[in-house]
Formats: sequence, C-alpha cells, structure tokens
Amino acid sequence: MTSDIETTVWRALDGFVIEIPSWGFADTGTRFGKFHQPAAAVTLEEKFHDAGVVHRLTAASPTMAIHVQWDLSPQQRPQDIAALAKSHGVGVGSINPNVFQDPCYKFGSFCSPDADARRSAREHLAECITLGAQCGSQCLSIWLGDGTNYPGQDHLRRRKRDLQAALRDIHQQLDREWPAAALLVEYKPFEPAFYHTDIADWGMSYVFCKAAGEKARVLIDTGHHLPGCNIEHIVAFLLDEGMLGGFHFNDRKYADDDLTIGSIDPYAVFRIFDQIAQFEFETGARAPIAYTIDQSHNLKPKLEATVQTVCEAQKLFAKAHCVDRKALAAAQANTDVVGAETVLRAAYETDVTPLLHQWRRNRGVPLDPLAELRSSGLIERLGRPREAARERRHGSP
Amino acid sequence: MTSDIETTVWRALDGFVIEIPSWGFADTGTRFGKFHQPAAAVTLEEKFHDAGVVHRLTAASPTMAIHVQWDLSPQQRPQDIAALAKSHGVGVGSINPNVFQDPCYKFGSFCSPDADARRSAREHLAECITLGAQCGSQCLSIWLGDGTNYPGQDHLRRRKRDLQAALRDIHQQLDREWPAAALLVEYKPFEPAFYHTDIADWGMSYVFCKAAGEKARVLIDTGHHLPGCNIEHIVAFLLDEGMLGGFHFNDRKYADDDLTIGSIDPYAVFRIFDQIAQFEFETGARAPIAYTIDQSHNLKPKLEATVQTVCEAQKLFAKAHCVDRKALAAAQANTDVVGAETVLRAAYETDVTPLLHQWRRNRGVPLDPLAELRSSGLIERLGRPREAARERRHGSP
Amino acid sequence: MTSDIETTVWRALDGFVIEIPSWGFADTGTRFGKFHQPAAAVTLEEKFHDAGVVHRLTAASPTMAIHVQWDLSPQQRPQDIAALAKSHGVGVGSINPNVFQDPCYKFGSFCSPDADARRSAREHLAECITLGAQCGSQCLSIWLGDGTNYPGQDHLRRRKRDLQAALRDIHQQLDREWPAAALLVEYKPFEPAFYHTDIADWGMSYVFCKAAGEKARVLIDTGHHLPGCNIEHIVAFLLDEGMLGGFHFNDRKYADDDLTIGSIDPYAVFRIFDQIAQFEFETGARAPIAYTIDQSHNLKPKLEATVQTVCEAQKLFAKAHCVDRKALAAAQANTDVVGAETVLRAAYETDVTPLLHQWRRNRGVPLDPLAELRSSGLIERLGRPREAARERRHGSP
Amino acid sequence: MTSDIETTVWRALDGFVIEIPSWGFADTGTRFGKFHQPAAAVTLEEKFHDAGVVHRLTAASPTMAIHVQWDLSPQQRPQDIAALAKSHGVGVGSINPNVFQDPCYKFGSFCSPDADARRSAREHLAECITLGAQCGSQCLSIWLGDGTNYPGQDHLRRRKRDLQAALRDIHQQLDREWPAAALLVEYKPFEPAFYHTDIADWGMSYVFCKAAGEKARVLIDTGHHLPGCNIEHIVAFLLDEGMLGGFHFNDRKYADDDLTIGSIDPYAVFRIFDQIAQFEFETGARAPIAYTIDQSHNLKPKLEATVQTVCEAQKLFAKAHCVDRKALAAAQANTDVVGAETVLRAAYETDVTPLLHQWRRNRGVPLDPLAELRSSGLIERLGRPREAARERRHGSP
Repeated sequence: MTSDIETTVWRALDGFVIEIPSWGFADTGTRFGKFHQPAAAVTLEEKFHDAGVVHRLTAASPTMAIHVQWDLSPQQRPQDIAALAKSHGVGVGSINPNVFQDPCYKFGSFCSPDADARRSAREHLAECITLGAQCGSQCLSIWLGDGTNYPGQDHLRRRKRDLQAALRDIHQQLDREWPAAALLVEYKPFEPAFYHTDIADWGMSYVFCKAAGEKARVLIDTGHHLPGCNIEHIVAFLLDEGMLGGFHFNDRKYADDDLTIGSIDPYAVFRIFDQIAQFEFETGARAPIAYTIDQSHNLKPKLEATVQTVCEAQKLFAKAHCVDRKALAAAQANTDVVGAETVLRAAYETDVTPLLHQWRRNRGVPLDPLAELRSSGLIERLGRPREAARERRHGSP
Repeated sequence: MTSDIETTVWRALDGFVIEIPSWGFADTGTRFGKFHQPAAAVTLEEKFHDAGVVHRLTAASPTMAIHVQWDLSPQQRPQDIAALAKSHGVGVGSINPNVFQDPCYKFGSFCSPDADARRSAREHLAECITLGAQCGSQCLSIWLGDGTNYPGQDHLRRRKRDLQAALRDIHQQLDREWPAAALLVEYKPFEPAFYHTDIADWGMSYVFCKAAGEKARVLIDTGHHLPGCNIEHIVAFLLDEGMLGGFHFNDRKYADDDLTIGSIDPYAVFRIFDQIAQFEFETGARAPIAYTIDQSHNLKPKLEATVQTVCEAQKLFAKAHCVDRKALAAAQANTDVVGAETVLRAAYETDVTPLLHQWRRNRGVPLDPLAELRSSGLIERLGRPREAARERRHGSP
Repeated sequence: MTSDIETTVWRALDGFVIEIPSWGFADTGTRFGKFHQPAAAVTLEEKFHDAGVVHRLTAASPTMAIHVQWDLSPQQRPQDIAALAKSHGVGVGSINPNVFQDPCYKFGSFCSPDADARRSAREHLAECITLGAQCGSQCLSIWLGDGTNYPGQDHLRRRKRDLQAALRDIHQQLDREWPAAALLVEYKPFEPAFYHTDIADWGMSYVFCKAAGEKARVLIDTGHHLPGCNIEHIVAFLLDEGMLGGFHFNDRKYADDDLTIGSIDPYAVFRIFDQIAQFEFETGARAPIAYTIDQSHNLKPKLEATVQTVCEAQKLFAKAHCVDRKALAAAQANTDVVGAETVLRAAYETDVTPLLHQWRRNRGVPLDPLAELRSSGLIERLGRPREAARERRHGSP
Repeated sequence: MTSDIETTVWRALDGFVIEIPSWGFADTGTRFGKFHQPAAAVTLEEKFHDAGVVHRLTAASPTMAIHVQWDLSPQQRPQDIAALAKSHGVGVGSINPNVFQDPCYKFGSFCSPDADARRSAREHLAECITLGAQCGSQCLSIWLGDGTNYPGQDHLRRRKRDLQAALRDIHQQLDREWPAAALLVEYKPFEPAFYHTDIADWGMSYVFCKAAGEKARVLIDTGHHLPGCNIEHIVAFLLDEGMLGGFHFNDRKYADDDLTIGSIDPYAVFRIFDQIAQFEFETGARAPIAYTIDQSHNLKPKLEATVQTVCEAQKLFAKAHCVDRKALAAAQANTDVVGAETVLRAAYETDVTPLLHQWRRNRGVPLDPLAELRSSGLIERLGRPREAARERRHGSP
C-alpha cells in the first residue's frame, strides 16, 4: 500500500459516519416468531445507551436513527430526547415516521383510498417534522409500506398522484420549519405488500423526489431489490444525477432478509463503496450521503451484531479506497478487461487491518471492537436489569 | 364441451376435496404488523365453526387442518376435538406440529445443535402422533423452520443427519401407533431462515422421505420455490416417482406471499392440475394427494378469502379436466408445438361455470358460494360476539 | 356483456395496431444453436411478404418493423423499401438500428471507451434517421447491447454521460430531419452484458429520455425485467408521467426467453392492457403507444407463431376492455379487496370469442386466422422455393 | 497461519486438479453475436496446445475436457487424440457428448417424441463411450439441452421415463466397455429450453443417477441455478449422500452468464470449497470430485481468462482450507453465531499469496502465472499464424 493510498483510506475513515438504528437494539423477528434477548433494549434510554456503547467502541457511529412510533411516547419532549442522546455521547439521527402499523393504514397511508388514513399520515409527518427540527436531527427518512396485495385492489395512478401531492406538501413544511433537513425517500419492491408497492424501485423514488422539491433524495436500502439487481450501478447513476441521499445497509440472499452487511456478499458491498470512492476521487469532495444500518437480528445478540456491522462496513469502505484509480483508468481506457478487474480485486483483497488498527489507536478505541465487546461481559451484565425492568413493566420478561 | 368431458369434470369435482387450515381463520400478518378483523377466529370452536360454514357453502372442504400449537391447549382431549369437528359438520384434517416458535427452537428443532431442542421437538411430535391417531386424522404434515442465517453458523451435514434420524424415528412411531396416517414432508427455500434451510427444495424432501420410510411423501407448498421454478414439472416428476403426497396451495409474486390461489397466476395453477389430470387419465385411478390451502390473509376477510379460494381451486381443477387428452397426445407426437399449446389453452379458456353450477345444485349448495357469503351478512354477525369474547378473555379486542 | 362494453371492445380492437418485427420471420435461435426452418424468410422481400400474410389474415398488423443491419443492404433505397412494403399491403414500421453486432461494438456502442466505436454508432444512427424519414416510418426504436461483463471493466458514470450526450444529439437530428418520428428507448437488465447494462431498467430509460428531448419515450419489452417485477405498475406509472412510448411484446418464465405473448402468464398481459384501458377510459383518448411484437421462435413455425401472437394479443386486449370500470371504482373506494378482484377477474374470464369473430367478419378476415393459416398449407408451399433460393445464394440450405 | 494449516493448504493444493474445457479456447458468444479473437483456437491441436500452456503456467490443470461434436472429426482415432494431448503435456479429460445442436435434436435428444432422435442420441453416446475408453479419459459428462418451450408441448412424464431408460442403458455400456469411467449428470433450470428442462435441478439429476446405476453422480454447474439458490448447501447434501460427482465452475449474476469463477461473488465460491474442505477434514480422505471449468469468454482473451480462472480457483480453495475447524466446531456447538461467522470470515480473508507462491516455486511455475502470461506476448504471437490458418481453411478469418 502506498502512502498516498494510506492517506486516502485514513481520510475516508475520518469521514465515514455510520448511523445506528434504534430498532437494531430491540427485539425483532420474522412473522414466524421472534426470540427474545435479555439485553434487548426497550426504552429510548436503553437504545441511546446501546448506541453510545457502539460509538465508544468504534468512534464511527455518532448518531442514532429514531423510529418515532417505536421509540417515543407522546409526552416525550424533543429537547429531552436531544439531551438524552447527548448524555450517552451520541446525537439524534434521522427521524423515521411510521405510517404502516396503525390499523388505519391497513390499505396504505398517503396512498390509501381512505381520506382519513391519508390525513392521519400527513399529521404524523407534520409531528415528525416538528420533532426533527427541535431535537437536532438533520434528516427525515421516509419508508412507506403502501401497496396492494391483489390485482385490481386499488387504482395505481390515483395512488401515485396522492403520494406525489403528499410528498410535495411535506417538502414545503420542511422548507418552512426544518430547513436543515434532507428528505430521503426509500423504495422497496415488495413486503409488506405483495402485489404492488407504491414506491417499488429507485426510478419511482427518483420521480417522486424530483416532483417533491430540491431537498428530496433517493434512499437505497441494499435489501430492497429484485434478484440480480446491480445496486452499484444504481449508486453510480444516482451519484451522477446528484440524487443519491443515503443508504440503509444490510445484506440478503433471498428477499429483504435484513442480515449483517457483507455477511452474504462482501464483494458486492465493496463495489458500492468503490462507486462512491471513485466519485469522490474525481470530484474531490465528499458525497453528501447518509449511511445508516437497517438490519434485523433475531439470532445474533443485538449489540454484537451492531458492532460487527460497523467494523465490517469500515473494513469494506477502507478497501474501496485502496483502488489504484490511475491504473484502473488506464486499463479501462485500453479495454483491458482482465487488467481492470485485477486492479479492482487487488484493492478488495488488500489487508486493511493494520490501517484500521492505526486509525482506531489514534481515535482511542479498541483495535478490535467486536472482540472487546465479546470479552467484556457487557451484554450479560445488561441483560439482568433489563429483564427485571421488563418484568416490572409488564409482569413478564 | 363433449359429454365425455362433462363426465370427467363431474367426477373430478366429486373427488376434489380441499382441506381448510384452522390458521386461515385467525388473525395473521406480516412482520410489519397485522390488522385485526373482528370476525377472526380465536378458539378451536370458532375455527371449526368457520370451516363448517365453508363446507356448507361449497360441499368441497370436509376437513380442517389442525395447527397443534396454535389451536390446542394441553387439556383438550383428542376425542373432544373430533366431536367438536363433527358438531360443525367437518372432520379433523392433517395434524401440523409446531417446532419453530418456542424459544427453545431458536437454532432449529430436529437440526438444532442443542440436544434439548431436538428432544423437545421429538416429544412434541410424539404427542402429535398420539393426538392424530385418536382424533381421526389421516395425515401428519411436517414443516420445519430449521435453518441458519449466516454462513458458518452451523454444520450442514450434521444437521442433515440428525434430521434424517428424527424422521426415521417419527416414521417408526407412526407405523406403530397411527398406521392409517401419511407422513408429509414440506420444503421451503427460505424464511424464517435466511442463509440456508434444512429442507430447502423438493429434492431434499424426497431424499428425507425415502430415508424415513414408505409412508413418507413430499408436500409441495406452491409458494415455497425460488423465482421461475417450474412447479408443474416437479409435480409430474413426483407423480411418476410415486412420491407426491400433497399440496399447500396459495399464490405469490415474490417470496412466500401466501396470497389467494390463482390470484396472481391462474394459468400456473391450471398447469399443476393438468399434470394431475393427465396422470389420473392415464392410470385410471385417483392420485392419493392431500389438497390443502395454506394462505395468510391480512387484508381480505378470512371467511371470504377461504370461500373464494375453494371456488377458484374448483374452477381451475375443472378446467384442467377439460383438456382433450387424445388431441393433445396427437399434437405432442407430431411435435406440433402450436397445436399442442392450442389444445391446452382451449381447456384453460373453457367456461366451466355452467358445469360448476350444475354440480353445486346437485350438492345442494349455493351456485355462487362467495356471493352468497358476501350477501349473507354472516361475517358482520360473527364479528360482534367474537369481539366481545376477546374482550372478556384479554381485556381488549 | 353489455352493449356498452361491446362498443368499448370494438373500438379498442379498431385502434389496436400490432407491429410485426421483420426478424420474427427469419431463423433465430439460442447460443446453443438454431434450428433452420425451410419457410424462414431471408430477404427483405420475403419478410414483407410474410408480414403481408399476417395482416391479410388478421387485419391488425399493418406495419413491419425494420432491423437495419439484418434487413437492408447499403444499396437499398428508402423509397424502394416503402414501395416493397406497399406491394405487400403493409407499411414500414419502426426503424431499429443495430449497434451491437459489429466487432467495433465489442465494448459497447455509445458507451464504448473507444471513440471510434462511439462515432461509428452515431453514424449508423444518422443513416437510420435518414432512412426512416424517407421510407415513411414513424418511429426510431433504440435498443443497445451496451454494458460490461466484469466489475471494474469500465467507468459507469463516464458511460452514462456519453450515452446521454449521444441521445441528445440523436434527438436533435430527429427534430431537424424526421420531425414525425417518436424516439423510443428500450431497457434491459442483462444479456448480452452480464455484469451491468447501461440502460438497465425503466428508471434509467426515463432519465435518458428526459435528458434527450420531448420526443423521447420509454419502450417496455415485457421480457426485460428482473424476476417478480410488476410490469403493469411501471406501465401505469409511465402513463401517468406521459412517458410510455411503446412495447415489445413477448412472454418469459426465466430470463429474456422471447416466447409467445401470453403463453406463460396470460393474466399478466391482461393486467398490462387493463392499465392502458383504464387510462384511456379516464382520459377519453387513445394512449399514443406503439405496440410491437418482439419474439424469437426457434421451435414454432415463424408465420404460425406470428399469427398466433396477434390473435392472442387481440383476445387479451379485448378482455381488458371488458372490465366494469364503474363497479371496479366502487369496490376500490370501499376497500372491498375481494369485490374489486372479482370485477377484474370477471373481465379476464369473459369469453370474447364471439366479439372477435364479429369484428373479424366485419373486417373480412378469417374468424380463426391461426386455423386458417394452418389448414392453408401456405407454410409448406413457401418452404420449397425459399430453400431453393437459399441454395442458389449460398450453396447450401 | 499455523504450520498445521499451512500443511493442510499445501496438501489441498497438491490434490486440487482443475480440468480445462477445450471450448474455453474457441470463439464463443451470446445469441446477439460473438466477437472473434485472433488467438482463438479452432483445431483440436490448437486447443491441446493452449491447455498445455495453462498447465505449464499453473501446474494445476493436467487434463482438457473434450466436446466431441466441436473438437473431433469422424476420422480422428482415439489413440491419436491421446498422443496429441500427451505431446502438449496434458491428458484427455472428460468426454462431453453433444446431443443438442444437430437439427434432429430440435425437440430433444433422449426425451424427444421422435424415436429417431432418441436413437441418434443413443448412438452418439455409444461412440463417446468407445472413444472415452480408448483415449484414456476417466469420465463421461452428460449435459442435455432437452426441454420444452411451451406448456403442453410435450408429455413430461413420458420424457422422464425415456430419459431414465436411456441413462440406465448408457450406464450398462459403461460397465461393459469403460469400467474406469464415472458418469456425471448435469442439471440446469433453463436455456436453451424456456418452459421446462428435463433435468432441471439437482434433485432430478440425483433421481436419474440413482436409477442409472452406481457409477452415476450429480454434476453441479455453478451457473445452473435459480436466483438465490444456496449451492453450498446442495454440495454438502450431495457429499453426505455420496452423490457429488463434479463441478462445472463459472460465475454469474443473472442467468447462466458463464463468467470467470469468483468474479461476481468470490465468497460464494469459498463457501462451496469450505463444504468440501470440511468433509475432507472429517473423513480424512479426498472427496472424489471432478473439478472442471465451464466458462464462455466473449470479451476476455481466452488464454488470459483461463489462467486467471485457475489461479482464482486455487486461491479460494486454499482459503477454504485455512478455516480453523476446531474453533468453528466449538462456536457452532455453543450456538455462537457471530463467533462461528468470524472463524469462517477469518479464513476467507487470509492472505494466501505467500503460500501460493511457495507452492508454485516448488512446482517450478511462475509465481504469478497470469502476469507471466500477460507479459509474455504469447497471445499476440499465437494470433498471427492462427488467423492465417483460418484464412487458408475458410477464405476469411
């Protein structure tokens, strides 16, 4: 590794900030059941606590995304949330509305044929914006479960137009009340809807963003694609359009499996990061991308999985900055397919551990955060009082 | 339609018995939430009641499958279950163990690395066999959630061998205690496990069945295949091997969507039935196949969806018996691709409504069972007392 | 069927013009070989002859798409092509450039790193535009094979920008020289490129069209989607955006299988047509969509397959106009899922044969064009002289 | 890396013999065209020459698979083939019949409704067996293109039974005439057939093998699976059954893309090798698996691609033997998901380059065979005389 590349990697790590989702610390599962973990977080305080643990171990996850429905109670004041975050050494990350779980959203939120559902969704978003503006968040991140299960169930274009109007309206409120915020719009091909999903792919998200206003950007969840989809191509395309807003990272083999990033196909993650590194290399500026984890761990201990994820993301991000850009450009210009591939693979196979250790030492965090966490006994220690608290609250663990 | 074909269809309908799953009447949903329905059944009695309604409307669903974990309490005696079923005009269908939901099955049941989990699963199966033998069921139907989420998580061949031994053991108990029963072994490529599933495809199910014993047969759930899989080919192959035991019917567009049969791709269902009809035409005997519905309706009213399903299945089954087998064989022998296809499509496009009406009139059921149910107000009437009962039981609906 | 619906269907059939591709009459195959048919067309004259046959049998296919590379020799003058078409009772349809087969396009056409390849592609397009303007075509239809086979092989954003510039340039030439023409831009996820394809999905096609100019529209090939993709949703979305330009119709089970439309999933084709019918019902105007067939028949006799395709498309198009739009809207507004589905399925299951017969009788064509062709002996009659001509030209059949 | 692991890897490399396909040196392409390479091999001699080059560079590919139809002329005597191979420093590998390209196989070979086609296929196989027995090959490797393109086109069970009988018959001839040979039966879900393929998945291949006789084993082509399929699970399952016969290696993103192994998903290849390494670790014996490459390079220079492939396969095979089996077993037994995953990933990320260099030095081959080939100018040197020879033969390059 040349010292040029070392410098590049170091700077990349400095700028690589990975947001942790609050829901990554809570019990989740599949529709066939979830397996409770004693140390799973329930309260917002526990979640901020755990986010703080991850950040103290990695120095790479300074904010935690908030899922309004799951994390907050109506009486919680925005300023208290910000203070709570701060007390655990982190900040409030993106605000994630929930307009899919309440019975009123049975047939959709902004796309529902029921005006009351649409209004309710709009009100929830209004509250989210107020909240976000007051608790120091920088981002409103929208994922909808809207869709239909059967052909004919609803009028696809009517739904599109209602959604378009709602997003424009939300954007206007953002402009007025929360000008610092980005508006990220996520897409997903299926689940929970199984015939059509109103924002099914990046193209729909793109069109909705363009219609909504200039703060709106596409959010890519790596698990939200049909089989075979070339995600790094979408990344490159959106970067070129100035329309890539952020990521929800996870890995998958089949559907939206929500596994640990890089656990199934690490080279694919590397290739996404390579597109970003290439873009930043050429523009000389950091791409304004919000990196967030969005995984669901039914088997792995939550805290372990989160620390493992942050470290894995850092490793692959570092590798992507090891690409010899000059050699790659030369091979590409010569249509030297094997040569170009060899340059890319060399970066992927670079052992970046020494550099990561150096960076962590410099940041004052453990060289191997996952090993540190696993040997610390922390998860076991957290389990006991949390179980006890759960019992006090609900009468059962 | 010639009178020969009318006779064929009529006989086919006589023999086409569709089992209804108890869980099709209860609230179910996706991992993102479920939408409660007032008329959803909770108790076993309510489920048998609803199965009785479907059978009275269709004369085609004389049994209800039992999901042991979800339907029964330990104090329920097998003979009482049989009596309850009978009082609602139906019988007890297949027995479905549940070895995926209890915390002990976090890492699998028969495949778990934990001997306690394996023992627990074995004991549950032993109870299921005792129950099935005593309540007049004819079928033990096994679906496992066993699998792993991450590469390396467990030892694939160790799991295979433990499962193989367990199934052989179960088969022996069946032989001793419940000789009337078939043993059906279901497969599924993914969910709830997202890296590997221990019985991932029909081939694995086939090998496990062969090793277990002669009562064991493959169960095909139409939603449990990778994208593009030609299911009717598997049906034909297993029929030829004498190894097709039954179906769980549903439709899907993406993953295991559990939608109404024929709602996404009715021609595909027709082609499955065509393979069976062709087989029965040639052998002159009814193939010993257990037809069961296995759907999950989060949006459609449960009873409506079930009646719609039975009627749709009957319609497509009838169409499959309209194929002019002689003309088809002639075109196939002549490698007349367009001609053969035309024969098959003609059957698919045959309007079998008059024949279905005749058959239903003969059976004394409504000509249009779905319309009858929808206009009857039954679902609304059921909703009120069931909501009330739920409140009494749990303090909330 | 009410007489209102009969009128609707009749008008729909009147307006449903299906373009036939010249390459549908020539020998094609898979990469594993192609099976020669004696009656396969080789010369442009033979292709126009066959298109004329199809149109005389169906009264629904008045134009034939031209594939410049495969159909034309440099000495062919545009006006002669138009005259040839006319002499066979058809017109010249869309112009389809070929910038994927020549060795210079090994690494792409407009996206190639090689400036010569890009220039060559641009020149070919210029000639196509000149040709199209002079031979009475209304449409330039662009499909590119551009893409890469390996990660790193080329610079994705550089390719995008070169393609964007080329399309803008082409659009300008269209404006100047061929103002009557629409510019259709097709997308495809993979094949012949296997890592990334420069126009991989409808979203990319949309963005390229928007950047190119106002004549540019998205062309949907029904076989060019990843598994599970909801095509009718894309249709609805593009209709709402005013960006749907046309179709290449075929069916598939796996990849770009290029099978006969409706042969694998007829209900899916119906649902596409339903979105168009719904749109036209609401707007009261015909959507400006170019319907073209694009199939590859290695086993079916070419002429048979083409006539079968036209008839199948008409049948499904007619069914889509049988939807009771008022009843559907009412059910959708009431979130009556089963009710709405029932309305849609009723239309799909409507027997439109009598109406098709009436319409054909009125047009003076055979009631069953496929049966007529098959019994006519035409294909056999065509085979002999064509084989002989082939032998004269090449020394072997 | 411990010295134990070094020993394990070294032994693994010693036993890892990768067969090269003759067709990997010839021009191939997609159905949209192929791009000729000057150095592409045409004659059998050229192909053996190239195989010899690869083996001299890698010391890992001592045999070349023969594709009878593409490589041999009727006058070629088996003993001459063996001598030709030997003169280039390699041996004759598996014999690959071709019963898919000749016009008589339009509707299948052993499954065709046409008895002449079935007979012709049987005769070709008989010749292959005679050839194989006489030229020192150890393996008959069967891939069929048999299948249908349209529902109804043919009788699926009739086809199955004819194929079953043919394979039994072939096995008997093997027993008599070529007792040293293994019989490998390959499966593929689609292409060139697009509705059904007669040996569609490993399960069908397994059943056919079991029925054929004890020399028959399943051959896994890594590109022949539906999206998402867990191939390493199939590997483990077949190993446990004693039914895994061999591999055709390549990589893919979409369909049967035939790209370089590990070029799209190297971790997936590693996981396949890990199952084999685990099996061999436990049994203490080498699994009798035939490793063969089967790729199609339209863009990469053939020789480069082949050497790259062999080196990539060796690297991933070596990594799979770096797994700390004891630590893995302990983590698995403790249901320590993160721990087990960490052990596996550590092996995958091990830098095995030093060990590979050592092994190559010991074998007397270049440390970096690909770099050696690329800098040698060999491919350019081969191009000139081969172009000239082509021109002499065909009048054009």
